[in-house]
Amino acid sequence: MRRSIVNDPENLVPEALEGLVLSNPLQLELHEQHRFVTRRERARNKVGLVSGGGSGHEPLHAGFVGAGMLDVAVAGAVFASPTALQVLEATKAADAGRGVVQIVKNYTGDVLNFRIAGEISGDDEIATEMVLVDDDLATDTGDEAGPGRRGTAATVIVEKLCGAAAEAGASLEEVADIGRRAASRARTMSLALSAGTHPGDDEPQFTLGDDEVELGVGIHGERAPERVPFTDADGLVELLVDPLRTELDLRRGEEVLAIVNGLGGTYPLELQLAYRALHHRLADSGISIVRRLVGSYVTSLDMHGISITLMPLGDEFRNLWDAPVRTPALTW
Amino acid sequence: MRRSIVNDPENLVPEALEGLVLSNPLQLELHEQHRFVTRRERARNKVGLVSGGGSGHEPLHAGFVGAGMLDVAVAGAVFASPTALQVLEATKAADAGRGVVQIVKNYTGDVLNFRIAGEISGDDEIATEMVLVDDDLATDTGDEAGPGRRGTAATVIVEKLCGAAAEAGASLEEVADIGRRAASRARTMSLALSAGTHPGDDEPQFTLGDDEVELGVGIHGERAPERVPFTDADGLVELLVDPLRTELDLRRGEEVLAIVNGLGGTYPLELQLAYRALHHRLADSGISIVRRLVGSYVTSLDMHGISITLMPLGDEFRNLWDAPVRTPALTW
Repeated sequence: MRRSIVNDPENLVPEALEGLVLSNPLQLELHEQHRFVTRRERARNKVGLVSGGGSGHEPLHAGFVGAGMLDVAVAGAVFASPTALQVLEATKAADAGRGVVQIVKNYTGDVLNFRIAGEISGDDEIATEMVLVDDDLATDTGDEAGPGRRGTAATVIVEKLCGAAAEAGASLEEVADIGRRAASRARTMSLALSAGTHPGDDEPQFTLGDDEVELGVGIHGERAPERVPFTDADGLVELLVDPLRTELDLRRGEEVLAIVNGLGGTYPLELQLAYRALHHRLADSGISIVRRLVGSYVTSLDMHGISITLMPLGDEFRNLWDAPVRTPALTW
Repeated sequence: MRRSIVNDPENLVPEALEGLVLSNPLQLELHEQHRFVTRRERARNKVGLVSGGGSGHEPLHAGFVGAGMLDVAVAGAVFASPTALQVLEATKAADAGRGVVQIVKNYTGDVLNFRIAGEISGDDEIATEMVLVDDDLATDTGDEAGPGRRGTAATVIVEKLCGAAAEAGASLEEVADIGRRAASRARTMSLALSAGTHPGDDEPQFTLGDDEVELGVGIHGERAPERVPFTDADGLVELLVDPLRTELDLRRGEEVLAIVNGLGGTYPLELQLAYRALHHRLADSGISIVRRLVGSYVTSLDMHGISITLMPLGDEFRNLWDAPVRTPALTW
């Protein structure tokens, strides 16, 4: 049984947002009614950026609100999309007169509600562009009629690159184009050694045998198509990086951006070992990680596991990645 | 059973240090033989700062190496002190000609080995001063002949304030004095809902009943003098903050620095709720949190729990706290 540090689980999301904003009083502002967080000092004369989705993935999304990244993040209940009304109000709040890019992880509810909000905000003469993040290679069925790949940790990359472009004065179309190109190039693979537990629940979302690893798990505790045998850090990382390298067709000499992401219950020593394994596995093929994040950025409650995200990095994206950012979860 | 993302547990610490340094290639340098991490660009003409201790508390200490904080961090095995020889070499590496402040958490092995290293480095004409961090209120027995209070999350405060003073050109004695005054004013209380598991072990360090909370737990999985009933986030936070407020004699109008720290297996939503509860509990008594950290900074493997650290904050310490810092785990 996993007990949680919560009050009434019904109040979890508003209380958590309040805690985040109280702990970043100069940077963030809470809009209680519609459960979104904005920069306290609104940006002017730039394209607005709004993102959001279900809670339980912290620091995504509200932890990425701030200069150089998001203007607004809107929060649904744990693993549930915010409503179209919430997204509409969040989109309006993100607008500074040059339109709003909506960054949306590819889940049916999120896509639907952001789309409705985008259409309605058009009636208020707010131009919107939606950038869909669909990086999860485990859900790549090749079936164009299907729901497509899920959106996971590449969301951080898309939010960062679009944020830098918007801050630099790019137009609505330019920011959206950068986001779409980033999303199209980044892929992620995830695995779990144990599932997360919903706050207030007694049991995790699924259980695994002592010799099993869930390869291709989703960030909402979705089961994977396969269970594979448990192995050591180097072996686990190979399970993630090898399919990514193949899918992205990474060749000798390639330079990449990498995210080694903890899924919530993974501790720093484990992430450091995973990064080491990733570095060597790619170096063995002549591929260099030239930029990286190592930490827990896109989580699934207290799921114990990791994801690895890779994206080839040229000059344009490298400059956008390196641009200053100042948010609760990412600062440089 | 908790499985870990490790290779051979015997190699855990060197591999983890390698991973950390590989992921911060411009900032950090690894000294393999003696298992310490330095800034890649050594500081000049300033007092050196070295810290360290057992592993398993990441990002402490190596995550705090960088401009405005530590020069060198030296790592023992999980929950075991680095040897006196390691500390000696780390102390030498920290010296830039103006002496070295050693920041040491109050544990017998650490104190002994840093003291021996300090004495021997004197033979090399390196002046050293030791700052002992002993903030854990749960181990305050009042017995002056005893081992004294353990050192926990206030270490981050001492490292930050000393780091800022050293960077600003303060002398060896001044930096040590700041560290000692900070350590004397900061107190911490911790609780756990479940213990951590040593990498490679099958079982956690201790187990609790579903209605039990370990109040006053140590960061090495030391049992606490008391088990108290499980309760909600607000109630758990009261168990920590009320004794701190009494001990520090915090009065209406007081301004404090607070750390809400996850112990390894605590996820962000829980920390946000804990910060919210702390804010309101102190505000009810007219006490303001004017600076804070909310995150997992001083961990105990994957222990599920939190600690709260409070320190009254005057102008001198506030300015040192606000000074720029650039390390893997703390940047502003």
